[in-house]
Amino acid sequence: MKISKAMLSRLPGYLHYLKSLPENSAANISARTLANELGLGDVLVRKDLAKVSDGGRCKTGHQKDVLIRDIENFLDYEHVTNAVLVGAGKLGQALLGYGGFEAYGMNVLAGFDANPATLAGGKQVLPMEALIPFCRENHVSIGIITVPAEFAQQVCDALVEAGVEAIWNFAPLRLQVPEGILVQNENLAVSLTALRMQLKLKATVSED
Amino acid sequence: MKISKAMLSRLPGYLHYLKSLPENSAANISARTLANELGLGDVLVRKDLAKVSDGGRCKTGHQKDVLIRDIENFLDYEHVTNAVLVGAGKLGQALLGYGGFEAYGMNVLAGFDANPATLAGGKQVLPMEALIPFCRENHVSIGIITVPAEFAQQVCDALVEAGVEAIWNFAPLRLQVPEGILVQNENLAVSLTALRMQLKLKATVSED
Repeated sequence: MKISKAMLSRLPGYLHYLKSLPENSAANISARTLANELGLGDVLVRKDLAKVSDGGRCKTGHQKDVLIRDIENFLDYEHVTNAVLVGAGKLGQALLGYGGFEAYGMNVLAGFDANPATLAGGKQVLPMEALIPFCRENHVSIGIITVPAEFAQQVCDALVEAGVEAIWNFAPLRLQVPEGILVQNENLAVSLTALRMQLKLKATVSED
Repeated sequence: MKISKAMLSRLPGYLHYLKSLPENSAANISARTLANELGLGDVLVRKDLAKVSDGGRCKTGHQKDVLIRDIENFLDYEHVTNAVLVGAGKLGQALLGYGGFEAYGMNVLAGFDANPATLAGGKQVLPMEALIPFCRENHVSIGIITVPAEFAQQVCDALVEAGVEAIWNFAPLRLQVPEGILVQNENLAVSLTALRMQLKLKATVSED
């Protein structure tokens, strides 16, 4: 079976939407409904669902519960990936304190910062010197970077040296990584600007 | 001039990349270089840049400083949009404390929460009863929602009633809004899952 990264990135959206439906909503849902609700193409959604679930029927669509289970199995949510977070400032603390990542298969074992601490949430913030040995001992696969931009590259280098395979980067900086290391950038400023510009355009259009 | 939302969403990325270049890098940059660095198509980037800047030359590309200025002007970063944030938990506090949004044209005037407070960063967290009058008095256009999912819809309704035109939603929930109200969803779980699945696929591929 061929799986594209684009498809993978759509699956959590399907899951999220299906789970957000009220308890008393219909037991079945069609690919068309899902496509309309999420602003995606009909055919695309139908193909995606066919790859993860064989429960779809022409007339009745997918049974909601079965589809949720099939997507979760496909996404391998029961196998947890270990992660660490570097940079326990405000955003870092918020992410460390957020208990919801386990449900998506990531266990944040500890934070690291120049100022070590124990957070109210019970997560340890260890000193930077402990980063590399800790990651190696605990088979950490994901490193979350929440340090300021000027320190992000050196933190990234240390994570790579420690054997991390994927970086989730919240620092507003393009990281340089060796081939084979994944980087996913979260840039809130980009999202914000897209929103503001849509606001501006709408205003312009409506004034004409 | 025709502007697509897709193009708008790319501009902050160009700006961010241009600004992240070292001081001593070349004074000129070509659309092709920018396209390669950001993993976008050549022609697409060339067309985008032509819409916001007339400084491009066939042989030498764009002057970096001029291009930065032109994109910033186009994005209207000097006109600040007022925003409020509702839900001063960990993520909300992190966003309230983040001083960087002003640079992208958004001024977060205050937070609102069932538990009012004054944060270390100097931002007020006002009681929920004050939300609607505050937004109306201060011409607030953007509402940022960082409450738990179960309260997000009612907060959204209040923001819309208060005259907000755009919602930046961090709650893992699909909001129902009247036509004409913009919603931008930030779902960290979706990003996380995309990263984890890429990790898993790579592992599968490399083991074969």
